[in-house]
Amino acid sequence: MSLVVVGTMAYDTVKTPFGEREWSLGGSATYFSLSSSFFTDIKLVAVIGEDFKAEDIEMIEKHGVDTSGVHKAAGKSFHWKGEYGFDLNEAKTLDTQLNVLADFSPELPESYRDAEYLFLANIDPKLQRQVIDQVKNPKLIACDTMNFWIDGCVDELKKTLERVDILIINEGEARQLAGTPNLVKAAQEIKAMGPTTLIIKQGEYGALLFHDGSIFSAPAYPLERVFDPTGAGDTFAGGFMGHIARMNDGTLSNTLLRQATVMGSVMASFNVEEFSMDRIMRLNRSEIAERFRQFKRLTNFEDISDEELI
Amino acid sequence: MSLVVVGTMAYDTVKTPFGEREWSLGGSATYFSLSSSFFTDIKLVAVIGEDFKAEDIEMIEKHGVDTSGVHKAAGKSFHWKGEYGFDLNEAKTLDTQLNVLADFSPELPESYRDAEYLFLANIDPKLQRQVIDQVKNPKLIACDTMNFWIDGCVDELKKTLERVDILIINEGEARQLAGTPNLVKAAQEIKAMGPTTLIIKQGEYGALLFHDGSIFSAPAYPLERVFDPTGAGDTFAGGFMGHIARMNDGTLSNTLLRQATVMGSVMASFNVEEFSMDRIMRLNRSEIAERFRQFKRLTNFEDISDEELI
Repeated sequence: MSLVVVGTMAYDTVKTPFGEREWSLGGSATYFSLSSSFFTDIKLVAVIGEDFKAEDIEMIEKHGVDTSGVHKAAGKSFHWKGEYGFDLNEAKTLDTQLNVLADFSPELPESYRDAEYLFLANIDPKLQRQVIDQVKNPKLIACDTMNFWIDGCVDELKKTLERVDILIINEGEARQLAGTPNLVKAAQEIKAMGPTTLIIKQGEYGALLFHDGSIFSAPAYPLERVFDPTGAGDTFAGGFMGHIARMNDGTLSNTLLRQATVMGSVMASFNVEEFSMDRIMRLNRSEIAERFRQFKRLTNFEDISDEELI
Repeated sequence: MSLVVVGTMAYDTVKTPFGEREWSLGGSATYFSLSSSFFTDIKLVAVIGEDFKAEDIEMIEKHGVDTSGVHKAAGKSFHWKGEYGFDLNEAKTLDTQLNVLADFSPELPESYRDAEYLFLANIDPKLQRQVIDQVKNPKLIACDTMNFWIDGCVDELKKTLERVDILIINEGEARQLAGTPNLVKAAQEIKAMGPTTLIIKQGEYGALLFHDGSIFSAPAYPLERVFDPTGAGDTFAGGFMGHIARMNDGTLSNTLLRQATVMGSVMASFNVEEFSMDRIMRLNRSEIAERFRQFKRLTNFEDISDEELI
């Protein structure tokens, strides 16, 4: 089973209440790739500038990520500068330099086109469809988006949504896209746009999975130290899609999707512990397994017998 | 097993995006009493004014609530006026008229003093201790508080906290009381003040239980229609304490506390569905049982075998 991701590779300048780092490795596709690399074969599609460091590409490849779909273009890499307040839930964007991303036109290498799983990270919905068109017979397509596209070209976004199975989105964006403050209603509205499955991310509060008439609530892992939330959503998506591709059981069962949602939360919980991808870069599968079990303990409560209940 | 609650009985004027109601039944002790009445014998301590409606007292008594500790004083009942925006998470207080509450000095009837369980709803921490002093040999004391007391008399509050087993508090108040934005650290700080167990309420996101070195995360129930969040916290506390008193197993085990936290969430989820106490007033135990089971389905995910996990 192989998983293709298209998105951004970037350098970020990030300030949190706990520190600051300039030009650290970032980008939605980078976070997603590293996260999913612990679960499955992952093939990366993105554009980088001439300034992109060889050592960063090497680190990514060392995680088993196929970078033959990474295109180096003339100019500088995408740069994002942001700042977080004490609540760490929302970044304030201070600067965005699109650079090579402005002319990005994703082209999949021939070896990518048989991919079974496809994740479209947050980029122009037109480009997301351009990628869908290049994959021959995908089993499952998931995507992310952001308020910028909901504000600016919701019709293009809706054309993309008609073609995806799973949308992974923030709660504020879900409300905006559906035009209702209530998340249960918003989920119904969004599912009517195309996706059979919806994940609404709630930052430090976890995530909700809407699938097949049922709702699953996964908490975020309560951490003593949250350092830098940048990339948490993409790392979540990487764990989620990675687990689905790894299990590759041909069905999109509630059981699998719920486990995958927890796995996304597991990966996101590691990511926020340190700046940039520092924590994910030195993670191993037994740490992942241990935290998955901690999520079980975090959410487990015993049934009450009918006798005691009624 | 009997449970005593001290707190306010009030009339509220509430405006939400979905409607408005004037002078509807409210107050922390009223919400708590009705909620816990589904689980255990409940004895109410509060002060009301001459304007308090006989039919409201009758309704409360019909739920089996002992109102012999409700004192009628000269003057008007406590009145709160508030408004909620679309996010429904935080009320804006428009007016507070203390009225008879200004001179409240809780006196427990003799028949209350053998109570095994005690809940101190949000009132002056000095009055909370005055009530503790009147109960002979309580098994368990829990309390609530609010930012007003943290701002205004934190030393008095800390004297109360030294004498309680469980504190049930909002996340904003937990951060304020502990002086740290991180909830895991805040929980450690607050437990060092006295309570062995802490519940941090997170509104529409659920609640966290900190007990005996472990953390439990209970979601809120995702509702299609949230009408009026007034009293949700007190209704939560009523379900939580009510279930503990009902099981009355003499221990404060993680198993019991986790179930009680879910039961609190169950009761709060009903409360917000309609204005004031309308929904709770016509609730029955089989509806409670059914929603408890829905919480199980909402949070349940299957383990992944070691083989598949590592």
